[in-house]
Amino acid sequence: MNTSSRINIVLVEPSHPGNIGAVARAAKTMSIGNLVLVNPELFPDRQATVRAVDAVDVLERAVVCTSLKDALGQCTFVVGTSARTRGLPCPQIALRELGSRVWQELEKGHVAIVFGRESSGLSNEEMDLCQYATTIPSVSSLNLAAAVQVICYEIFMAALEQEPDLAGTDCEDALADSAELERLFEHLQAVLLEIEFLDPKQPKLLMRRLRHLYHRARLTQVEVNILRGILSATQRTVSQ
Amino acid sequence: MNTSSRINIVLVEPSHPGNIGAVARAAKTMSIGNLVLVNPELFPDRQATVRAVDAVDVLERAVVCTSLKDALGQCTFVVGTSARTRGLPCPQIALRELGSRVWQELEKGHVAIVFGRESSGLSNEEMDLCQYATTIPSVSSLNLAAAVQVICYEIFMAALEQEPDLAGTDCEDALADSAELERLFEHLQAVLLEIEFLDPKQPKLLMRRLRHLYHRARLTQVEVNILRGILSATQRTVSQ
Repeated sequence: MNTSSRINIVLVEPSHPGNIGAVARAAKTMSIGNLVLVNPELFPDRQATVRAVDAVDVLERAVVCTSLKDALGQCTFVVGTSARTRGLPCPQIALRELGSRVWQELEKGHVAIVFGRESSGLSNEEMDLCQYATTIPSVSSLNLAAAVQVICYEIFMAALEQEPDLAGTDCEDALADSAELERLFEHLQAVLLEIEFLDPKQPKLLMRRLRHLYHRARLTQVEVNILRGILSATQRTVSQ
Repeated sequence: MNTSSRINIVLVEPSHPGNIGAVARAAKTMSIGNLVLVNPELFPDRQATVRAVDAVDVLERAVVCTSLKDALGQCTFVVGTSARTRGLPCPQIALRELGSRVWQELEKGHVAIVFGRESSGLSNEEMDLCQYATTIPSVSSLNLAAAVQVICYEIFMAALEQEPDLAGTDCEDALADSAELERLFEHLQAVLLEIEFLDPKQPKLLMRRLRHLYHRARLTQVEVNILRGILSATQRTVSQ
């Protein structure tokens, strides 16, 4: 199960260092050892170490980033966790299906599971960086480490229940990673402004819809290059 | 789901009051509200209240007993949780099957799920009071509240999976039909020729790639309209 080294647990702005430690422990019980922290309020901290118990090594290897975008750089499958239904939701993936899906995606690249703040979760903008959203069915909100525990449990169970599917060797094109997709969306937004399709004062809703559409398609690198080629050709023609 | 009022979470000699509070919260997220404490080291306690967050009512209703036997009094289905394999194990029940079994047993009577001490779990004598044992698959030991969270999650999921799916009423946008998609592809091809991105002699390979991409995304009618709007805006700008 060494592919689990390509699963990142990403925490956005965790405010309590104790929770970071408890998350490290929760992930490690399920054989997941990569923690990425986006702007943690306090880290490293003694409380984190105490609550990590035998997962101090996970804390020591944790990567700290200053933006979620940076944290997701090389990931090709990004799932945001959400406690609520949103106005314009990204595609949902049922928690019972998440585990087996993660192992399929690990054949192709890196996976990130993103958890929001203790108080308010992920913002819409942060959720827009994710290709899928998943929700833990519940009647009230889970503690951050408890949520990580449940999700990592589902991923671990999927590994136990099915030998990693080695059959999926249809040599597909490589998937575009998060950084490549973000450059595509920036390029797309620039062109849509040039051709006056986007209202510069209100670009967000439309861009979110387009993000969802392209996230859903799971673009390959070749496809991103084609789409950016179309955008560049549009710009050349417009400026003639 | 009011039969869940007949599920008891039983903690044997919990030593940290913070864990008791976290257990209360974990159980309540999964609609389980009965906590039974056997000889807690410190209870009630401020730490328990703090960690319970919005499950203080569960703490307030918690029953304190002086023996596990008393705690199990009226229960007809008792499952002990164990991290290790024992010399003379009681019958095991797989965690994935525990949930549906619990709901079957609730038809007949009360259910108890028993959790041992943070440090050493349940003794053999205590395990002998249980009819079944269950184990959370893991590579290291879970925090007490994390273990309660995972087990209550399985019980809650079994309830959701049995009930007719009332959740599946997310009125999604209608999918575009084949004719709408074909008009989109014609429009796209026309624009790609105008901006000289397509070789008019060899348009097919690229158009096929784009078809695959958009087919994969399962476009909605609204999305087709947006994409065609972008194409029209491109044409207007180009012909200016």
